[in-house]
Amino acid sequence: MNKAVLVFLTAILMLFIQGTGFAQQKDWVIRLAKIEIDTAYLAQYKAAVEEHTQAAVQSEPGVLTLYAMYEKEHPEKVTVLEIYASREAYQAHLKTPHFLKYKTGTLKMVKSLELIEMDPIAFAAKPGLFEPKKRTP
Amino acid sequence: MNKAVLVFLTAILMLFIQGTGFAQQKDWVIRLAKIEIDTAYLAQYKAAVEEHTQAAVQSEPGVLTLYAMYEKEHPEKVTVLEIYASREAYQAHLKTPHFLKYKTGTLKMVKSLELIEMDPIAFAAKPGLFEPKKRTP
Repeated sequence: MNKAVLVFLTAILMLFIQGTGFAQQKDWVIRLAKIEIDTAYLAQYKAAVEEHTQAAVQSEPGVLTLYAMYEKEHPEKVTVLEIYASREAYQAHLKTPHFLKYKTGTLKMVKSLELIEMDPIAFAAKPGLFEPKKRTP
Repeated sequence: MNKAVLVFLTAILMLFIQGTGFAQQKDWVIRLAKIEIDTAYLAQYKAAVEEHTQAAVQSEPGVLTLYAMYEKEHPEKVTVLEIYASREAYQAHLKTPHFLKYKTGTLKMVKSLELIEMDPIAFAAKPGLFEPKKRTP
């Protein structure tokens, strides 16, 4: 077997072994946002989050994941898992029209906001669960 | 255009429009597990979580997502986002050898555990971020 082939096969093998470990993703910013909503605005708040989530993940290369959810027993308690490709990607996100629309549009609905920086232990998911919605034609 | 072709094209179009909305996923169980670890065991606990996460998402069709992370400023505070395809899938998960190994192996490391049932607002992610690691040959 010639050397180039051996290097190629080793590279492929390493891809399989490493999977999606976090070693190569050290710039990522992983965060839990804990948000408490004024119960008078729950429906409007959810609509604003839905619009913002799809727009950000569809249009920004550096917004990797936005999972927004609320506690079944306390619908006013929202948690968002946010993953950005880097600090720069997050800073760029803050200046986008969809983020500014979300932020200003929901200011009066949000009673409190806590941002908690996280480090990963292990992340695994079935493929293709939450690819962003395609734009309607 | 004949009717079968029209039905087929409509189905394809609906797939694109619906994307990954949650309407068709009403059986899913989405949960945040909040776990406090004895600081003496952080490294061992992380190793046990890593092994369990990969095994569960690889081998169980009903374990859709396991994202385990800890607070940067409080490494003993762990949060796991868990998504199962149904209550039955979760019950089956509790009986697997990898879960039982994780559970019994980490009992002495865990100081407290709180399980919070969540409902989704909007989930979106770039494709292929956290597909489970391939088994090493």
